[in-house]
Amino acid sequence: MTGHHDTTGNSPLFGTLAVIGPGLIGSSILRRARQDGTIAARLVACDASPAVRARVAELGLADRVEADPLRAVADADCVILCVPVGAVAEVGAAILPAMKPGAILTEVGSTKQSIIGAITPFLRPDVPFVPTHPMAGTEYSGPDAGFATLFDDRWCLLTPLPDTDPAAVSVIETLWHRMGARTRIMDAAHHDRVCAIVSHLPHLLAFTICGTADDLADETRSEVLDFAASGFRDFTRIAASDPVMWRDIFLNNRDALLEMLARFTEDAQAMARAIRWGDEAFIVDRIERGRRIRRSLLENRQA
Amino acid sequence: MTGHHDTTGNSPLFGTLAVIGPGLIGSSILRRARQDGTIAARLVACDASPAVRARVAELGLADRVEADPLRAVADADCVILCVPVGAVAEVGAAILPAMKPGAILTEVGSTKQSIIGAITPFLRPDVPFVPTHPMAGTEYSGPDAGFATLFDDRWCLLTPLPDTDPAAVSVIETLWHRMGARTRIMDAAHHDRVCAIVSHLPHLLAFTICGTADDLADETRSEVLDFAASGFRDFTRIAASDPVMWRDIFLNNRDALLEMLARFTEDAQAMARAIRWGDEAFIVDRIERGRRIRRSLLENRQA
Repeated sequence: MTGHHDTTGNSPLFGTLAVIGPGLIGSSILRRARQDGTIAARLVACDASPAVRARVAELGLADRVEADPLRAVADADCVILCVPVGAVAEVGAAILPAMKPGAILTEVGSTKQSIIGAITPFLRPDVPFVPTHPMAGTEYSGPDAGFATLFDDRWCLLTPLPDTDPAAVSVIETLWHRMGARTRIMDAAHHDRVCAIVSHLPHLLAFTICGTADDLADETRSEVLDFAASGFRDFTRIAASDPVMWRDIFLNNRDALLEMLARFTEDAQAMARAIRWGDEAFIVDRIERGRRIRRSLLENRQA
Repeated sequence: MTGHHDTTGNSPLFGTLAVIGPGLIGSSILRRARQDGTIAARLVACDASPAVRARVAELGLADRVEADPLRAVADADCVILCVPVGAVAEVGAAILPAMKPGAILTEVGSTKQSIIGAITPFLRPDVPFVPTHPMAGTEYSGPDAGFATLFDDRWCLLTPLPDTDPAAVSVIETLWHRMGARTRIMDAAHHDRVCAIVSHLPHLLAFTICGTADDLADETRSEVLDFAASGFRDFTRIAASDPVMWRDIFLNNRDALLEMLARFTEDAQAMARAIRWGDEAFIVDRIERGRRIRRSLLENRQA
C-alpha cells in the first residue's frame, strides 16, 4: 500500500520529505529539492550531531531541523536514510515504528545486500522500502560539501526487494529523475559485484598504493612523495575519502570485493609476467583495452 | 668541455636548440621557449613523421622543421631527445657524430638506467650528456597536445653520470627553471625506483583494472562499465595514455616496477585479509595514511 504521491505534474512529489544524515549526499538532496520545487513541499533534516544541525540551519537547507529521528519522520511522506552504510539498518529499525502508513522508506548506501539483509526483519508491510545507490560523490564530506547538481547525469541504481510495491519504486525513480539522475533497476547481488569492480576495488587500490609508497619513503629516508606525478595524484584524490565510510563499505561488501580483488590480482600478475618476459603484444593489448574503455565511458557521459 | 651557454642574464641560454620528437613534451618545450625568449635564439624541430612535421610547421612551433636528424642537430648548442623511451639510445647514437663539440645532449625519458646503459657506448667526451625526466604530462600525445605551461611548478629530475661535466648539468638545470619547473639531481637507480612507485605502478594498476572490469562485463553480459563511479573514472583517465610509450616504460624499468608491484601486492593482500576478518583498526589506519599523504602532496603543490 502506497500513499498518494503525485508523479505526474509539477506539483511536489511529496508533502514532507525527511533526510536523516544531511552529509555530502543528504545535503545535496536537500539543496536540489529546495531549488527544484517539484520534489517536496516541506523539507526536514535530522542529524545526531549538534554541529551538523547548527550548520544545516545556518545554510537554510531544510524547513525543520530535528535532533530526534522519531520526530523527524513522524509526518514524512518519504524518509531518505543518508547515514553511513554501517548505520542504515540500526537507524531504519529505530524510525520504522514512527513512520506514517503509506510513507516510503529509502536509503542511499553504497552496498545493497548487507543493508537489505540487516533491515528486513524490521520492515512493515505498510511502509514500502526502496534501496537506492546514487553513484555520485566527491572526496569531501559533511553538509558544506553538498551541491544541488551533484546527481546531474549520474546513475542512481535501485535494488527493490521482490515484494516491494512497484508503485513505490516508481515514485523513487521519479524522485531521482528530478534530482537530475538516470535510474536503473537491478538485483542487489548484481549491484554489489558491479560496484565492487567500478568503485570499491579502485578505492582499495588507491588506499593501498599510498601506504606502499609511504613505506618506501620511510625505508629509503627519501623524498618519494615529493615527486608524485600525474599517475599517483589521481590515486591520492580517491584516497582522500572518508575512512569510516570506506571501512563500512569494504566490510559490508566483503565477498564481492574480495572476489574482484582476486580477479584483479590474477590480471596484474599476468601483466607482471608479460613485463618480465618482454611480451610486447600482451602489454600493448592490455593498455589498448584501457583506452577503449575510456572512450566508451566518454560516450556515456560518465567521465 | 662545454660550449658557451649564457646562464646569467636574460639573453638566450642557447643559440640554437633542437628538439627531436615534438610530441606532448617536445612541443611544450618549443612553445615555452618561443614564449619565454631567454631559452634559445633559434628553435629547430625534427620528426620522422611527415604529418607531425607539417603540423609543427602549421603551428609555427619552430624556426626550422627538419626530416633529417643529422641536419637538425648540426648547428645546435643543445639537443633534446623527446622520442619514446625505447628509441632514445638509437636516435642518440645516430645524431651524436653530427653534433658540434661542446653542444649538450639531453633527453626526457621516463626511465633512466636503461637509457643511460644503452647510450653510453655512443657518447663523445666533447658532448656532455645530461639525462632528465620532467614529471609532467597528460593522457594526450602529439604536437597539438603540448602547451607552454605544462612544466610550471612540476619537478624535473636530473640523473647525470658520475663523469658528466657539472657545468653542463647546471646549464640544463637553468633550462628547466626557465621552463617553469623545479629541479632535483639524483642517482639514476633511485630515480627508477621512485618513478616505479609514483608513476609506473599506478599506470599498470589502471590498465589492469580496466581489463578486469571488461572481462567481468563480457562474462555477465552486463552493463558494468555504464556505472563507472568516480573511483573508476580517475583510473580510466590514466589508462587513456599512449600504449607504445607505456609499453616501453614498463619494459625499460622492469626490475624496479616488478619490485614495486610485489610490495604493493603484499600490501593489498594484507588489506584483503583485514577485510575478510573484519579488522576495522587496520582498515581505518590504511585509509588514514592515504589522507595524510594527500595532504602532504597538497602542501607540496603537486596535486
